[in-house]
Order: sequence, then structure tokens, then C-alpha cells
Amino acid sequence: MADKKLVEAITSMNEDFAQWYTDVVKKAELIDYSNVKGCMVIKPAGYAIWELIQRQLDDMFKATGVENVYMPMFIPESLLQKEKDHVEGFAPEVAWVTHGGLSPLQERMCVRPTSETLFCDFYQGDIHSYRDLPKVYNQWCSVVRWEKETRPFLRSREFLWQEGHTAHATAEEAEERTERMLNIYADFCEQVLAIPVVKGRKTDKEKFAGAEATYSIEALMHDGKALQSGTSHNFGDGFAKAFDIRYTDKDNTLKYVHQTSWGMSTRIIGAIIMVHGDDSGLVMPPKVAPTQVMIIPIQQRKEGVLEKAMALKDELSEFRVKVDDSDKSPGWKFSEQEMRGIPVRIEIGPKDIEAGKCVICRRDTGEKIEAELDGLKDKISVVLNNIQQDMLERAAKHLEEHTYQAADKEEFVRIFNQKTGFVKAMWCGERECEETIKEEMSVTSRCMPFHQEHIAETCVCCGKPAKKLVYWGKAY
Amino acid sequence: MADKKLVEAITSMNEDFAQWYTDVVKKAELIDYSNVKGCMVIKPAGYAIWELIQRQLDDMFKATGVENVYMPMFIPESLLQKEKDHVEGFAPEVAWVTHGGLSPLQERMCVRPTSETLFCDFYQGDIHSYRDLPKVYNQWCSVVRWEKETRPFLRSREFLWQEGHTAHATAEEAEERTERMLNIYADFCEQVLAIPVVKGRKTDKEKFAGAEATYSIEALMHDGKALQSGTSHNFGDGFAKAFDIRYTDKDNTLKYVHQTSWGMSTRIIGAIIMVHGDDSGLVMPPKVAPTQVMIIPIQQRKEGVLEKAMALKDELSEFRVKVDDSDKSPGWKFSEQEMRGIPVRIEIGPKDIEAGKCVICRRDTGEKIEAELDGLKDKISVVLNNIQQDMLERAAKHLEEHTYQAADKEEFVRIFNQKTGFVKAMWCGERECEETIKEEMSVTSRCMPFHQEHIAETCVCCGKPAKKLVYWGKAY
Repeated sequence: MADKKLVEAITSMNEDFAQWYTDVVKKAELIDYSNVKGCMVIKPAGYAIWELIQRQLDDMFKATGVENVYMPMFIPESLLQKEKDHVEGFAPEVAWVTHGGLSPLQERMCVRPTSETLFCDFYQGDIHSYRDLPKVYNQWCSVVRWEKETRPFLRSREFLWQEGHTAHATAEEAEERTERMLNIYADFCEQVLAIPVVKGRKTDKEKFAGAEATYSIEALMHDGKALQSGTSHNFGDGFAKAFDIRYTDKDNTLKYVHQTSWGMSTRIIGAIIMVHGDDSGLVMPPKVAPTQVMIIPIQQRKEGVLEKAMALKDELSEFRVKVDDSDKSPGWKFSEQEMRGIPVRIEIGPKDIEAGKCVICRRDTGEKIEAELDGLKDKISVVLNNIQQDMLERAAKHLEEHTYQAADKEEFVRIFNQKTGFVKAMWCGERECEETIKEEMSVTSRCMPFHQEHIAETCVCCGKPAKKLVYWGKAY
Repeated sequence: MADKKLVEAITSMNEDFAQWYTDVVKKAELIDYSNVKGCMVIKPAGYAIWELIQRQLDDMFKATGVENVYMPMFIPESLLQKEKDHVEGFAPEVAWVTHGGLSPLQERMCVRPTSETLFCDFYQGDIHSYRDLPKVYNQWCSVVRWEKETRPFLRSREFLWQEGHTAHATAEEAEERTERMLNIYADFCEQVLAIPVVKGRKTDKEKFAGAEATYSIEALMHDGKALQSGTSHNFGDGFAKAFDIRYTDKDNTLKYVHQTSWGMSTRIIGAIIMVHGDDSGLVMPPKVAPTQVMIIPIQQRKEGVLEKAMALKDELSEFRVKVDDSDKSPGWKFSEQEMRGIPVRIEIGPKDIEAGKCVICRRDTGEKIEAELDGLKDKISVVLNNIQQDMLERAAKHLEEHTYQAADKEEFVRIFNQKTGFVKAMWCGERECEETIKEEMSVTSRCMPFHQEHIAETCVCCGKPAKKLVYWGKAY
């Protein structure tokens, strides 16, 4: 009975996906709610995922010449106001600091919702000559946006992220960097998180406040809703003009720099949960699983069992491996390991030891594999690789099966009434059509994919000549 | 002429140590001032040091069972007020958030100056049974204290740090953890930063707001002033009582937990600068040097020189190595490498290449070593180890030579009038004497060292019977 308790406490994902999500983040001990409304406590099991994401993404950044820095967390109001679109986009949702110690501040400051203005202010003083370019800086920090509705990882008033901010001599170089970073995000999602994504450009309506062009990667969750999982912005010279960031070029003339910014946040942990999870809880891709292998001794009080479990742990030390030697029952331990999404479970009891064997159980498929203890390390390595690859393949199949296309409005409406997923459809390029579609169907343009197809002559909304293929979907 | 410019711009440390410090942090490009008063921009060269500190200290933490988490950056005013001493200590120097977006908050919140209250609030809900103990959590984050006087790294309104917060079943276990973390800080300073420290307990006057006991490590800067470089606090059950953090013990009774906290911040970068630096700039200990080896080609336009420099770089890839192939003169490059404190410079020109040799130059001593190109990797490894070790020895010698002892007040006053450094002297245990000494000589008790000596019968200030040996000094 007790063995089942942990699992029974989770709502089934088909019954209520939102409640299933909340149950998983709590039961897998990723977060806890805090007394600060809209802010969460990221617990060890959740933060360890973020650390693995950070480490691997940061390595990919640095391989392209990115350097890390740290800017102040406060932005004076006058600085935030320098770029018109930007302040309009962010001012309604920032937290304002008005007092330092016992005294009111001369000028109030907001807690950074993003740091374009701080980087611009810094670059203005730091960039003089073409020799100072490019600047390819990034910071890992937390940011604050005063959201009304919040959900763990997906939308919280404070969240952790990285924000890259670059300055370049030419427009071409800035565009190249913008797309390069988007590709890094896409590669990271596919190769490390086993999450396939659609890469594309945002429409003007959906682009970042102050950007010339915003690109995003869009992932499809298990419930068919989209999650914007990383963005990369090309600012052109808009911020440079607002902040007067100029450099002396080789020809001795003053020119404005061209800038980009790009970010990925703890939101991506929500994507891992909603792409891979199941009714037993979390399913972690091995590359970001804080624990990759959990060894669970069976009849652990019998002589030699715990010792053998510990010896296996040492043998498997190149993986992130643990032994559950608590006084809980094996069934309870299985449930916990499944809830936490640990990719591989090794069961080992007296009979196994006698036979020189153990049982390997895959979290993603539930498959049980009898394995020789000899050469177990190589076997585990193969199993983890297979899990990583199979998870990506399953997610890619889900994405493919839930991507539809609609040639006209009737078909568009019918699909969204019956299914959830991405719908590819043509668009005339007018904001009005996006607004109509959003109003009528709660569907937004996700992106104009880099890989453009031609599926109709006319806009799916107004029937006028079409300009672009757009991925549409309901989004988190 | 131009070659000297970089160096000439630095004030000599004997002439004006404070100005020398400011010159170094700017010229070595560690930080820049920002438009946000009292907050600094940590530039790539500075942040890379912090990343190396983080990585190595975090590994030492995790080896003792520490788990990382993330708490909100805001503390509601009512939460800050729960522990009496704590709120008195911090309320006068916090930044207050009063508005979220366009609306005033119902309750104002401060930006965390430290997170005891948040961890306590979390533990109150998370700890139920002895099975939930110990909790050994840590977070890497930034904190804000509204200081009036600020200096790069040493005192800024926002700074980066780690703060560990633990909860234990017994007082003994909490005390053990408090001292264990202090020892980790001391080991880290000596083994990684090449900075010897004095370990000891703070007097009640100097302890942390809300702590039962505070321990610190104290380092001696080149100018003879002390820098508190890491602290570890035992809270007993004071916070547990204020926040009602209780657990059911094995005997089925409710008991309060015992707590600790411990922190090290970007301040430690100030210690690296002030312990090791010289009139040519920064001198980095190899273990935290972002670049350990700078290869500087001589006559780099001559055929084969740059190619050889690049080949050497590949050969030395196990170190953090760079080639300076900019179009500056070798002399200028030497000055820059010295300013940045890069431990080893390799000079290689056409004649060296012909002879199968190069010149290795040690940053710490200026020593030039002619070396065969064959087996250079092993040679560099030896040189870096020697530098690390010699830097610690020199700093230890400086500490020893600038640690004095005084048996009575006359001697005490005479030493502080003539010298700068630590003075060991006996103390009666009364706060009044500490206050008198501070008032008369601007000297504070640094710590009561773990290694107690008996150098007199009576207090150096009042002449009453002495209880403790104290290290006294002028402090940053």
C-alpha cells in the first residue's frame, strides 16, 4: 500500500495537465513556494538541473568567444527610459526601489527585468575604437518582472537566466551573432535536453521591446502547447543611437555599433518536465540528470548486499550515481526514483549477487534489462546513451505528429478546435490578422520558421496574398 | 616610450596604497564604475577570477555534502523583523522595494542583505522529522547593503557571494559544521589563493547580528591592514526559536534545530590584489589566474614566429594559455601581461626558435629562465607549481614579520604608532576595553585565535586579569 502512495498523489496528465505539472514540480522536490508572492524556492533537486544546464551551455558559449561579466542589479529610472520602445515594454512590470537604508533615494531604481540599458551604458564608456570590437559579453543572474499570474519555472516574478549582450562593428556581424546564438540554443535543446525545436523569426507584434528582429526557438509540450524556450535579438543600431555608442573605424570616421542580446532561463526546466514527464513523474534526459543511476539494494539487510551496492557505486563513479540505502521498502524507493526521473535504476539483491547479475531498469520506457555485473560500466554507458537518443526521437515524433497545416481559415479553425499542436499556415504580414486570430482562437504566431514552405497562396486569416509561412499555436 | 605608459600610470604602492589599489583594479580591467552609485561592473578579467574561485570552492563544499539551492532575492519586512538582533543589524542598510509595476506593494520588501530569514522561513515548513536533518544548503547570489563609503570589491552596495545555511539536530553538530566551514575557507585561501590566514572567534562586539558565535579568517594585506576574508556563524537555536523551526526526534519529542551560516564574497578578490600585487600591477596565484601563461612572440612578422607561438599554445593546452598576437610592441605586451598578473610569460623569437629554446619569465619574481622547447609542458607545470608555493611562502613570511605582540598598553600603543600589522595582546573580555582601544587607536579586535598563547597576565587595556589572547589590527 505505502509503496503506491507517492505515485497516487500525482494527478494523471491526461486528466488535468496543469495539475499534473504542479504535482510533479512539488513531488519531485524541484521547488517550493515561498512567502514572497510569485517567487519560488529552487530546491536542491531543481537547482542541480540548473547547474548542469549552466555548465554545458556556458561551455558552448565560451567556445564561440563569449566572456562572462556582472552588471549591477539596479537600473536608475532615467537609464531605463533612454530607449522608447524598451521602457514602454518593461516599465509596467518592474519592481521599484525607492529607499536605501533609512533615506529615500534621489532617483528611484528598478530591479533589472533585463539588462540592455546597463550594458549600453557600460559600452558607451568602454567602446572607443574598432579595436574594442566585438564585445561578446554574457551574465548569469536573476531578473525580476512583476507578473500577475505565476507558475513554477514557467512564469515567476524572479527567475534565473543568462543574458548575452554583444556589440559589433557591422550590421552583418550582429546578424551573424544573433543567428549563431539561436543555433546554439537549438543545438543545446536537442543534444543536451533531448527537446527538438522549431527555429524562426518572430513577427513584429511578438518581437522584443526595442529589437529590430527577434528569433526564437519554440518547443512543443506534451499537451500540445508551445513554449518559447530561448530568444535572440538583433537590435541593429537602435540602442546605439539612444545611448550614443560609437566607435572610430579604421577609416577614422565615427560609427554606431550594432548590438544583439540573447537569453535562456530556468523556464527551460519547465520544458524538460512537460516534454518528457509521465504519470509516474519526471523523466530526466541523462545529460542533465543530477543523478543518472540509482542503485536500489533488495533485501539490503542480508549479508553482503549493501556492500555490493556500494562497490557498484564506486565502479560506476564516472556517472552521477547514488545508492538508496534508506530504511524504506524497495517499492517505495522505486516510486521515488521514478518520481525524480532518474534515468537508470539498478536493482541488486542476494540472488542477483549469487548469479553475478543485476537488473537495469530504464525510466523512460520501464524496460528491464538483466545484466552481468562484469562490464556493467560499459553497459550503463550504452543504456544512458540510448535513453538520451530515444528521448529525443520520441519527442521529435510527438512534435511531428502534432504539427498540422492549414490552407484556409476553415481548416485552421477546425484543427484548433479538434487538436492541440502547431499549425503551419500562410500569413499576409499584417498585424491585424494576428490580432484577429488571437481574439477568435487564443492562438498566437509562434515564429516564421527559417525553413519556409509554400502551402497556399493566401493568408489563412484575411485571404489576401500570403507573404510568410507561420507556426501558430497556443502558448505558455 | 609607449611601452612604459601602462606601468607609469600606476601609483607606487609605497607612495599611496589606496590609490595603487584603485589603479590596479582599473588598469588590470577587473572592474569599472557604473552609473549606479556604489555598484560596480565586474569586467571579464575580474569575473573570470570569480568563476575560478566559485568552481573550486563549490567543489570543496560539495565534498562535504553541501547542496546548492536558490531563494528569492526579496524579504518581506515582517519576515526580516522576526529575529530581533538580526533586524537591528541589517534594517539600517537595506534597499527597499515599495512598488511592483504601477502599484504600491501591500507590504514593502527589502533586497536581501543576507538570507537567514528566508532560509529559516523555508526550513520552518520543510523540516518535520529527524529524518529531514541535517540540511546543508548553500546559494551563490548577489546581496545588497546600502553602504555609504564604497570601494571596488572591498565594500560595494551590491556584491556577489555564497551563503551557506544549515540546520542540525544537535548543538554539537552545528558547532562542528561551523568550524568545518571555517577550516574550508582557511584551506581554500592558503592552498588556492596563496593567502595565509589567522583563524579564530570574533568577540561578542564583532559577531554577526543574531549569532551565538562568529568565527572568521583574517588575512594581512601588504600595507599591514587586516581583511576579514570569510565568516562562519553558529546561531544555536536562536533563529529556530524566532521562526519556530522544530523537528520530531527519535524519542518522539519536539526539538528546536541548531543552525549555522557561512559566507565568502567577491571581497576576497580585493585580498588577492592587496596580498600579492606589486608596482607593476596584479600578481595572480596560478590556481585562480584566468590566463596562466601568455606567449609573446618576438619579431612576430618574421616567418615562422607566429606559427611557432600558436603551436606552443596547442602544446600547452592543459593550462589556461593565450598568445598575444596583437600589433602592439613586445614591451607593451610585457607591461600588459604584468599588469594583469599573468603568472608566466613565454618569450619566443626567431633566434630562440633556431636554438630550440624560449624564455620563461615569472611574474612573481621577474626571474627569467631559458628553457628547451622540448618538454616545455613539464617545465611550465613545475614553474606554475613553484610560483603558487613561493607566493604562499612570501605571504606567510610577510604575515609573520608583521605580527607583533604587546604585553602592556605602552608597548601596544608604541607598536601601533610605529608599525602596521597584527598585534597579539591579552584581553579581559570586556566590551568597554575594545571600545577604548578603537577610540584611541582606530584598532579593532580581529579575532581570538584558535591557537591561544599566554603572553601576559593582564588585559592590555585595563590591566585587569586577562581571559583571552586577541589579534588586534586596523581593518578594511
